[in-house]
Formats: sequence, C-alpha cells, structure tokens
Amino acid sequence: MREISFFYFPGSTYTYLTVNRIEFRAGEAGVTVRWRPYNLRLFLRETGTVPFPSGSAKERYMWRDLERRARRLDVPYTSPPPYPVDPDLKALRVATLAALEGWAPEFMREHYRAWFLDGKPPGVGTNTEDVLVALGHDPQAVIARAEVDEVTRHIDSEVAEARRLGLFGSPHFVVGNEVFWGDDRLEEALAWAQDPSEETARR
Amino acid sequence: MREISFFYFPGSTYTYLTVNRIEFRAGEAGVTVRWRPYNLRLFLRETGTVPFPSGSAKERYMWRDLERRARRLDVPYTSPPPYPVDPDLKALRVATLAALEGWAPEFMREHYRAWFLDGKPPGVGTNTEDVLVALGHDPQAVIARAEVDEVTRHIDSEVAEARRLGLFGSPHFVVGNEVFWGDDRLEEALAWAQDPSEETARR
Repeated sequence: MREISFFYFPGSTYTYLTVNRIEFRAGEAGVTVRWRPYNLRLFLRETGTVPFPSGSAKERYMWRDLERRARRLDVPYTSPPPYPVDPDLKALRVATLAALEGWAPEFMREHYRAWFLDGKPPGVGTNTEDVLVALGHDPQAVIARAEVDEVTRHIDSEVAEARRLGLFGSPHFVVGNEVFWGDDRLEEALAWAQDPSEETARR
Repeated sequence: MREISFFYFPGSTYTYLTVNRIEFRAGEAGVTVRWRPYNLRLFLRETGTVPFPSGSAKERYMWRDLERRARRLDVPYTSPPPYPVDPDLKALRVATLAALEGWAPEFMREHYRAWFLDGKPPGVGTNTEDVLVALGHDPQAVIARAEVDEVTRHIDSEVAEARRLGLFGSPHFVVGNEVFWGDDRLEEALAWAQDPSEETARR
C-alpha cells in the first residue's frame, strides 16, 4: 500500500494548510496518510531555534505568505491568529490520543478552524475542550484518556522516530526514509510515494 | 513593463536553482528580471541567524531537498559543494559590480557552476578571479572596479532597500512591495507580476 507519514506539531502555523488539504490530495494520488503528531517544541528548545521570532521580518513574511498560499489552495483565511500556542502541550497530547484512536483528521481540522477562524488559541483556557465538544466528545473523558502512560510513551517513541529521521519542522512528509518539509512539498512527497523510481529517474 | 526584482546573496545555496532558471521562466511569463545582489550576511549577523547550522538535521535536509529540486527542475547537481563561502564578501562585491554593469546573469551562472559543479567555493583563493577569466574578463581590472566607493554605496543602498522591504533570505522575488521567499516561490512571484489583481481574486 502506498503510504505517507504526515508528521506535524499542533502549534505549527503552516500546518493549517496541510490539515485542510492532505486527505483530498492523497486520495487523488491513491496514497494513504498516517497522521503522526510529534513534539517539535522539544527539538526547537534543544537547538535554541525560534522559527518566527516575534516582531521579525520573517514572522511578518510568514503570515503574508500563508495568506497568499491559503488563497491559492482555496483554504479559508482571514487574518493572523494568536501565536504562539499550546503552552502546556495539552493539544499535542489530545492530538496524539486522536491519532492512536483514529480520529486525527477531524480533530486537527476543528483544532485549526477554532484557532485560525475563531481566534481561539489551542491549549489555552478551555479552547481544546471546546474543540472536543464541537466534535461530540466528552472533553473531560478525552483529556483523562490523553494523560495515561500509553500516550506519554507514544509521544516519546514518536520523538525517537523523528530524531532518527532527522525531522526539525512541521509539516513533514515521510515516505520510507525520504523526508520532505513544508506544505509546499506535499505534491512532491505524494509523487514520491506513488513511484520513487520515477522521481529518481526524472532527470 | 512587468518586472520582478530578484534579490540574492552569492553565498546562498538554494539560489543556485534560481540563477539557472529565472531568465527562462521570466521570459516565458513576459516579465523582466532586475538582478539585485544584497548583503544578506549582514542581516543574518544582526539577528544571530544561522540558516543551516553545521552538522544539523536541517542542513542535511537542505542538501537532499536541493538535490531533489535540481532533478525536478533539470538543473545539474552532483553532491553538496563546499559551504559556507565568500568569507570577505569578494564575490558579493563583484556580483554588485556585475549588476551595475549589466552582466549579472552570466556572472552568477558561472559563479554557481564553479562552486556547485567544480567544487570551487566563491571568494576563496582565486576562485572568483577564475570565474572572471572564464567569462573573458581581466580579473584584476574587475576586482579594482568592484572596490570603488560607488560599489560600496550601492551595496549600502541595497541593504537599506532590503531592510525597508523586510527581506531576510535568498532568493527573494519582489513585485512592488510584495515579497516572495525561496526558489519554490518563483512561479507565484511571476504570476503576481503578470497580474496582481488576478492573484488577489483567485479565491
């Protein structure tokens, strides 16, 4: 079966685009998507990396680029949402549980909708609980399931796998050991999943 | 006249792709290219930014991504060339002179060919002089012309313009005040140059 692993951090900005289009694009390509949230923040802290320093030219550019890309990709966008987010990694834990239980795509879409279109930063106050309610879940029951050791162990093992693969951002797409970074590499990753030899032979 | 400004730093890795394809792609789009080398290193030092830390996962990814992109874009590529380069900004000064005198495209193509395909890092030893010789220039005469005050003033004024526009990388494409970053945004920038209203209305 042709498959790509979609590694993402629920506090990533550009991942908003991917969450809203990956299932459709992968479906067109005949590729299945494995949704794999991972703790990118740990990697950023280890390397002292701030992807978009507050007030920097790069940060301003990111929002403008994201707006243009959203328009091109037909993804709704209004204005820069609150950032950064998920101070205690609550959204990451719930996203990990959702991936383990098979409801990652719905959760991530609603998570980003609430953040980008309603301006409710994930993991702040009861915003993540509200996302769960919107999806028909009992929020306290889900949060409780997200705090068990099995989820912690899964977060740790995905960190180990991300380290092995050399991941450093979000979104990443991985086919075997071939790593792609950025929503703008989604089509390239899908083409690779369809036929690596074709990709290799293209030149 | 439809025009894009192509801002670049001669020590940038991804700019290799752009230098080898921008004139062809712009020609197809009916857009003229203004070649504008600028001192990105100054900006990186000011913000303490190291785009690809030596030995990092991001650095390894960059070379692999560049290799795949080169293959897709039909740009010759063999293996990671020496990096970083141009310790004294000699190549930047010559690139600036070339832009002022109207031979930037030829110079930049040969500069990158020598670096990426012959493994001769720009601005090191006589590598930049050798590039000038390959193009039929008298290297000592060019270097002398590159050291005059007019070139220094132009480097300074392009830094001021890059600051005003909010540039932070290479390559950048600028149409009016609309800024694009990365070789993978070239087509989007050209479409914008052709018709900004069309781009804005796409949604």
